[in-house]
Amino acid sequence: MPSVSQTLRLVVIAPDSLQPDAGDDYAIEQAERSRALRIGLLEAGYNIVAVLPTDTFLAERLAQLQPDMIIVDAESEARDALEHVVVASRDARRPIVMFTNDDDTTHVKDAVAAGVSAYVVAGLSPERIRPILEVAMARFQHEQELRRELAHARSELNDRKLVDRAKGVLMQRQGMSEADAYAKMRRAAMDRGLKLGEVAQRILDVADLLG
Amino acid sequence: MPSVSQTLRLVVIAPDSLQPDAGDDYAIEQAERSRALRIGLLEAGYNIVAVLPTDTFLAERLAQLQPDMIIVDAESEARDALEHVVVASRDARRPIVMFTNDDDTTHVKDAVAAGVSAYVVAGLSPERIRPILEVAMARFQHEQELRRELAHARSELNDRKLVDRAKGVLMQRQGMSEADAYAKMRRAAMDRGLKLGEVAQRILDVADLLG
Repeated sequence: MPSVSQTLRLVVIAPDSLQPDAGDDYAIEQAERSRALRIGLLEAGYNIVAVLPTDTFLAERLAQLQPDMIIVDAESEARDALEHVVVASRDARRPIVMFTNDDDTTHVKDAVAAGVSAYVVAGLSPERIRPILEVAMARFQHEQELRRELAHARSELNDRKLVDRAKGVLMQRQGMSEADAYAKMRRAAMDRGLKLGEVAQRILDVADLLG
Repeated sequence: MPSVSQTLRLVVIAPDSLQPDAGDDYAIEQAERSRALRIGLLEAGYNIVAVLPTDTFLAERLAQLQPDMIIVDAESEARDALEHVVVASRDARRPIVMFTNDDDTTHVKDAVAAGVSAYVVAGLSPERIRPILEVAMARFQHEQELRRELAHARSELNDRKLVDRAKGVLMQRQGMSEADAYAKMRRAAMDRGLKLGEVAQRILDVADLLG
């Protein structure tokens, strides 16, 4: 049954090679697991738009590709891979789902704080892929909503503080009443197409110079 | 290897009976799965302090038991069970991990918004239990931190608005200067052992009466 989530555009971050040396059993197993994950994603109906290594071009490529979600196929180097991805998506947060066999969960807390929406340790069966990605997307959106509310409350609080301080400067320097100081700032904001907080910031910026 | 997380006190929310009728294949399978989950939790070193049904006493029992985490073993009635648990832990948020075979993920979004830290669909192998619970705990703590910051920013903002409005009332009614109004409120707060915001709220509460 097709759904919205099936059309998600994914970028998979993985170690480069699916063609390991014939003698390297560990590398062969890793490549096999990595292949199985990608097949699972495709079978679940997702669109893999790129498979990228964790190099210095990662941030630039993510900005070009604008994926809906980042899948980190980290096998045993969960911590290293995570660090790269978090740095690369710092400016534009995206849901990150991490698949790893690294059962050292000591850095799970860091991963979650860094923005990983799902952290899946140990093997996975193909039918679990869709629920995992859907839960991860829901978590990401929920957390983004909390972050937006927090940013909004902080910016409003900051504006109020700036306006109060700027009002104080006008009252003290120009001998204005509170109402006049406020009215003057509002007028300046409207005349210049600025927000009240921006006018307040400018008043404070030059207050020292004029002091 | 023992770790802090192994001593977590869990409450499992599950349908009451582990002893289904002999003829009811579905109930037998469900009971088997439920038993396997509890064995897995115990084997992973967790402490199950109670197994509770989703009845009207749930909130009261959770308040008495104060578990570190709530495990919802919901099988096919994920939505119903979740509703009960969310209501019961509304006043004291706790990490909630939901195990279900219900692959209808349409209500995952509601579950996440309602505070479910992990939502695990389909079968689970015992070695996955610990990472799941650790990730869930990390997520819960991370989200609580965001919520605390948001509550703090909002309360500070609200206090500022109250103080500004109360200051305006004093300035207008008593003909005080801004500085005097502020000083008077600060003094009142110190004398009565109240916060500035509380004094402001009281001024506003009676302003209409005195108007």
